[in-house]
Amino acid sequence: MTKKISIVGAGLVGSLLAIYLRKRGYEVTLYERRPDMRKVKIPAGRSINLALSDRGWKGLQGVGVDNAIREIGIAMTHRTMHSVDGKITTQPYGKDGQGIYAVSRGILNCTLLDIAEQSGAKVFFNERCTNINLANNEMSFENSETHSHTKATSDLIFGADGAFAASRLQMQLSTDKFNYSQSYLEHGYKELMFVAKPDGSHQLDKNSLHIWPRGGYMLIALPNLDGTFTVTMFFPLKGNPSFESLKPKLDVNKFFNEIFPDAVPLLHDLEEDFFMNPTGSLVTVKCTPWSFNNKIVLIGDAAHAIVPFYGQGMNCGFEDCTVLNDLLNKHKDNWEQVIPEYERMRKPAADAIGELAVANFIEMRDLVGKPEFFIAQKIEGWFYEKHPDKWIPLYTMVTFTNIPYNEAQEKGKMQDAIMNEIMQMSDIENKWNDIAVENKILTLLKQQSPNKNGL
Amino acid sequence: MTKKISIVGAGLVGSLLAIYLRKRGYEVTLYERRPDMRKVKIPAGRSINLALSDRGWKGLQGVGVDNAIREIGIAMTHRTMHSVDGKITTQPYGKDGQGIYAVSRGILNCTLLDIAEQSGAKVFFNERCTNINLANNEMSFENSETHSHTKATSDLIFGADGAFAASRLQMQLSTDKFNYSQSYLEHGYKELMFVAKPDGSHQLDKNSLHIWPRGGYMLIALPNLDGTFTVTMFFPLKGNPSFESLKPKLDVNKFFNEIFPDAVPLLHDLEEDFFMNPTGSLVTVKCTPWSFNNKIVLIGDAAHAIVPFYGQGMNCGFEDCTVLNDLLNKHKDNWEQVIPEYERMRKPAADAIGELAVANFIEMRDLVGKPEFFIAQKIEGWFYEKHPDKWIPLYTMVTFTNIPYNEAQEKGKMQDAIMNEIMQMSDIENKWNDIAVENKILTLLKQQSPNKNGL
Repeated sequence: MTKKISIVGAGLVGSLLAIYLRKRGYEVTLYERRPDMRKVKIPAGRSINLALSDRGWKGLQGVGVDNAIREIGIAMTHRTMHSVDGKITTQPYGKDGQGIYAVSRGILNCTLLDIAEQSGAKVFFNERCTNINLANNEMSFENSETHSHTKATSDLIFGADGAFAASRLQMQLSTDKFNYSQSYLEHGYKELMFVAKPDGSHQLDKNSLHIWPRGGYMLIALPNLDGTFTVTMFFPLKGNPSFESLKPKLDVNKFFNEIFPDAVPLLHDLEEDFFMNPTGSLVTVKCTPWSFNNKIVLIGDAAHAIVPFYGQGMNCGFEDCTVLNDLLNKHKDNWEQVIPEYERMRKPAADAIGELAVANFIEMRDLVGKPEFFIAQKIEGWFYEKHPDKWIPLYTMVTFTNIPYNEAQEKGKMQDAIMNEIMQMSDIENKWNDIAVENKILTLLKQQSPNKNGL
Repeated sequence: MTKKISIVGAGLVGSLLAIYLRKRGYEVTLYERRPDMRKVKIPAGRSINLALSDRGWKGLQGVGVDNAIREIGIAMTHRTMHSVDGKITTQPYGKDGQGIYAVSRGILNCTLLDIAEQSGAKVFFNERCTNINLANNEMSFENSETHSHTKATSDLIFGADGAFAASRLQMQLSTDKFNYSQSYLEHGYKELMFVAKPDGSHQLDKNSLHIWPRGGYMLIALPNLDGTFTVTMFFPLKGNPSFESLKPKLDVNKFFNEIFPDAVPLLHDLEEDFFMNPTGSLVTVKCTPWSFNNKIVLIGDAAHAIVPFYGQGMNCGFEDCTVLNDLLNKHKDNWEQVIPEYERMRKPAADAIGELAVANFIEMRDLVGKPEFFIAQKIEGWFYEKHPDKWIPLYTMVTFTNIPYNEAQEKGKMQDAIMNEIMQMSDIENKWNDIAVENKILTLLKQQSPNKNGL
């Protein structure tokens, strides 16, 4: 019988999972490598705010914390693109005011930790997992303050310790036939900041996610409650221009004035932030299996770290929790059935969102700046409005539905192929909402469906 | 100045590399995790004999040990296929008696170790590398007999410690942006054996590599000097049939009698070997970068472990040594230039042979049993004979030339596309050597070359 469950990692997913498992009556202990973030300040330049969307909300809703979180979020209903010449374009994210929510990672995590503790989970901080003996589920920890070593065992261990998970490393080192890949983009990121107006309000529309797409790179900005924006620069690590090439301060100022002119007056202290904040790297992690002997299970980034360009990292991890909880209901807490099914369902979904996230980087930094993209989006939005049962834009499926990511990816490919044909139609930029376009899409959908859906 | 070089791993590649580096005057120390294989017996069921081909010979030739090795090898000039109904088909590997050489991994490794020591390299056995501090090139070892811990530093460290390299793990754990993947086939392998005739001769043609292709799986057999054959069964790990499903002894005998009937009378002790020998796994490892700060460099399987189906694992590792030595000549031992160029040249080559090796598994177990495959091979052989300047079969490029693997792979794809068109020609099975076929290939080659070769 599984009674005692340990979770390595008290980040967003570990904390939410603890709440779910406490609700089901398990003894839950969380071990976190870092100090208690409710008591210490998070280092600057590492905050990256998050965009909560439907899958994330569903995860929070399942334990009744969605309303508390909605109060600390800012709805972003639009994408706002800033071109070099100062031209501004906006696109709605969904229809009828659908939006994604900018939330602070820190506040969200602290809230979940509070609720986890209130619900009876024990949380130990500063405990770095140094080993997991997979033969007897014994975890070893080293306390980063006292340097004392402790051990603990559990009926079941969840590895929720993120992209560089110690739990996953043990699976790599101690199990046979563990498939694993970690793959880095050639871009890194740097956190910058837009200051608030003197009256504490935002200098740009706060209900937008702002993008400065520039082909090979981009800036994005997400609103914070205090009137500031967290700005993230996604930029090549090497080459020209790159984080490596922009060394002298003069170069950085010159570059920003040329490439992001309308952002410059809003920035906090470009030189300080650019040179003092760390350069982050962007990794995709895939592995399989996610579990060993039904006694240790990877979840969230530990199982499937993805790059941030679809805003789905946390949402996917929260959906892991929802799916797991649904399966525990279905199988009446029989973990021997739950774990294999969880893995069968979630592995293809996680692979899909990992790929979609990399692909969306190219779309965000590149395609959104291209006129064809806008036409295709207009056609898609218009057709979706008329035939919501026949076509849902990929972004909408990923962000505003719970359709498994892998199904969304498949449908997205099929829709892409159709849209490519539509864009070949003559004078499409003017005739984009012509009856001929509608009919052609309907015909192509009919042709596609027998193959693509295996009917 | 680089003077002291350490090599972690005294396997085939580590030992050969040591000889090359000693010839150039470096102080060379080898650290090997296992005991001295010249003094202890290698465990049964783990020998897998090797097939030396041109790239391997070139590596051995560069240090003058090719003739010594040729004496302990057996030339295999043909592939012999055994079908279920006992029918035997042979195909030459190359033309004019070109062959690959079956050699014993153990004897080869012992010979290279002897020569490395004679040339002045120091070799320490039973020394397991537990850590490499990349900041100061300090290696830590634990002796598996005395359990004593020692440390050593070096100007340059080579990680030649194989598919599960400790050196590579340090790169994964301690460097930023290390791209890494380990990916297992769903098949494993098991070593079996054919006994010799009472007079010590071989029961099957010894100048052949024997294959029992059966679609989803296969047996292969390579000759040994003592009249035996080392037999390897490549078989699914799970499913039906699989190593998992063939549990009772009766099942194994029944299965072999049905599926490999002509092999059964030749086998040593099927039940003992099947149940006592370990089931091996088949992994492909890719990573990049292969080096850190030009102070530690991965080589051989540590950089690029591949599956055995092209017989190129060792050959590729030996070619690493040849390429490195050529670059040391070119750049007059300036390692700062040599290491980046080595990596730029070898990484695409290693990726290519890794992919070709996986693809050849499907060919070996499947296509060789299909009649179209034989026709295509006949056409290819005939055309190659007439136009050796225009077409070289992929197998020949990989096995009997030093064309970089990635170029061979590219050319192979182009040739495959042409052969697919040729195979559509009417009555091709009878008209395979018609002038029309020759002309069509020539025409298609002319069409292909501007695109594919970037002319």
